[in-house]
Amino acid sequence: MGRFGKRDDLVVHVEEPFNAETCLGSLTNPVTDTDAFYVRSHGPVPEIDRSAWRLRVGGMVERELSLSLETLREAFAERTVTATLQCAGNRRAGLIAVRDIPDEVPWGPGATGTATWTGVVLADVLALAGPLGDASDVGFEGADVSPEAEPVQQFGGSIPLDKASRPEVLLAWAMNGEPLPPVHGAPLRVVVPGYIGARSVKWLERIELRPRPWPGYFQHVVYRLLPADATAGPGIGMPLGLVALNSDVLSPREGATVTAGPVEARGYAFAGGDRYVARVDVSIDGGASWTQAELLEDLGRWAWRHWRITLDLVPGEHELRVRAWDSSAATQPDAEAALWNPKGYVNNASPRVHLRVLPAAGARLRAARA
Amino acid sequence: MGRFGKRDDLVVHVEEPFNAETCLGSLTNPVTDTDAFYVRSHGPVPEIDRSAWRLRVGGMVERELSLSLETLREAFAERTVTATLQCAGNRRAGLIAVRDIPDEVPWGPGATGTATWTGVVLADVLALAGPLGDASDVGFEGADVSPEAEPVQQFGGSIPLDKASRPEVLLAWAMNGEPLPPVHGAPLRVVVPGYIGARSVKWLERIELRPRPWPGYFQHVVYRLLPADATAGPGIGMPLGLVALNSDVLSPREGATVTAGPVEARGYAFAGGDRYVARVDVSIDGGASWTQAELLEDLGRWAWRHWRITLDLVPGEHELRVRAWDSSAATQPDAEAALWNPKGYVNNASPRVHLRVLPAAGARLRAARA
Repeated sequence: MGRFGKRDDLVVHVEEPFNAETCLGSLTNPVTDTDAFYVRSHGPVPEIDRSAWRLRVGGMVERELSLSLETLREAFAERTVTATLQCAGNRRAGLIAVRDIPDEVPWGPGATGTATWTGVVLADVLALAGPLGDASDVGFEGADVSPEAEPVQQFGGSIPLDKASRPEVLLAWAMNGEPLPPVHGAPLRVVVPGYIGARSVKWLERIELRPRPWPGYFQHVVYRLLPADATAGPGIGMPLGLVALNSDVLSPREGATVTAGPVEARGYAFAGGDRYVARVDVSIDGGASWTQAELLEDLGRWAWRHWRITLDLVPGEHELRVRAWDSSAATQPDAEAALWNPKGYVNNASPRVHLRVLPAAGARLRAARA
Repeated sequence: MGRFGKRDDLVVHVEEPFNAETCLGSLTNPVTDTDAFYVRSHGPVPEIDRSAWRLRVGGMVERELSLSLETLREAFAERTVTATLQCAGNRRAGLIAVRDIPDEVPWGPGATGTATWTGVVLADVLALAGPLGDASDVGFEGADVSPEAEPVQQFGGSIPLDKASRPEVLLAWAMNGEPLPPVHGAPLRVVVPGYIGARSVKWLERIELRPRPWPGYFQHVVYRLLPADATAGPGIGMPLGLVALNSDVLSPREGATVTAGPVEARGYAFAGGDRYVARVDVSIDGGASWTQAELLEDLGRWAWRHWRITLDLVPGEHELRVRAWDSSAATQPDAEAALWNPKGYVNNASPRVHLRVLPAAGARLRAARA
């Protein structure tokens, strides 16, 4: 076991800074094992002295705070939320297939995962600090310094105060009932359910009440849908925040060969913000007809929904299509081509998996004898 | 002027019960004129004696209320919200073009509109009644009796208590600064910004705190995405609620002939729930490339966003495509075919308008001389 824990369930894209996604097999668990949970890092894991560590709360507040871990635990009520985190670049590989995106991690379907997060409600901490009337955004800054940023800076981002005031947004010290591992942001990270993973800042050091969104590199320059010509710069492009409705197929895998007859397909679907997954459909005739998949365990409104369907497949080449619907009756766009953007964010195209279906053994035998 | 006011700006689909949509020209106003605002009725406009009228609040509450209009005005603070209402059947004509939907109103793009609504905040009234702990939904019942319903019943619907507790949900007696006209629900209607129009119950008589969604015909049987085989019945199909991201083109019109050179295109876009319209793109090359349209006046988070773009069109046949993006970076599905459902709800396909572009007069003259 190396520095990042057990590695068997991770597909490692970059060793340093460590970037790895959950393998397909481990994505089918309703709650993702901590060791299998995707890791998105923009710099080395910072060394933090827990006894000296303080969370500072400042900016547009009535009183600045400096809180030790012990104070956080003692002064505020503990809360646990089951929430899915999803990297804005999840499923980027599908966009790369349309047109190359050379400098970004080629995430497959596993830059997402669900855990139970335990800590305190951010809103309780904000209430103690007392946001001033003109504060509209809540910024978070981590201890990790990113050499990717221009200029080099600590990772950070912000969410609207309206969202930060909701009870599901946590400052978490535990993941799946165990202390947060270093790679996931120990001693304390933000968890913003329904928002892109980049806002769930790890190794949290500082909270800043602000009159506008975070001005740092990771919100004001990147994590944005840039124009097709890749012009980048402060404030250029469409900012990301809420997670768009998405789904993917976990089995069978793209390009798989299966035997004719009943074949079980499984996957996940997720709707961010105030939406939930209302339905998942599967088509094996190019979208001419769709059949509803079974929605599996409901982990609450901040978590993904796994689905399952048994298809009766005849021999031949098949394209399996999937589309999720959210509670506004919106569904996913058809294909990746129209979604391509220079940094490859938010691929939420209706997924397609190509299968080769062989005759069952008996049928093959009969054919061979004929 | 007839019973329903001026009719010049309305396209009337059904006279009794009155169902009419806003004409294209009037849809380009940022706020829709009251006389031009779409009307969706499921029964005759009820006759209501204002002096005898009371709003009853009951169900799972600490104390039942019976409030006259005067009491509502005196006991609670007045609030005005600019909000777009949209019928779940808006743009149904696009679905009918795929496959007929015989028994529903063939709405074009005008079953939507934006008004300033004035009244009291629903949450203030609920607070006086005191919802009991197990209440999860807030039901509304109008005075209008619908012969369409099985069995015949008053129109009604519900929203989650969480939404009903938000400050944008009103009990409104005024529309665009004037008393609510009879056809729009006088003396009092609900206005639920971001939800399908069917939840903004007109001619409101009764509010009921409930442990589950409304069991009546207009929520439990219809206003649902039914399965493709049109099986209907209590609880069958996917319930509607939040409005899905949508957009449409208001000019030029489908099938229009225009002159080559700069052509201005205009339209609207709307994102329900906690989303806002972040971007609108236009393509004139079949979706291969997209250009950002200009977003016009921002009327706040509960209103549509008009957009405008000047296209430089060369002679020939052109297909103009439009797609809106919401603040989760989700965009619209490509085409109506996959969205067809038996009652024709929620057509939010990326709109397409076909244009014939003629050479400019000088070019035609030069061509004639050559």
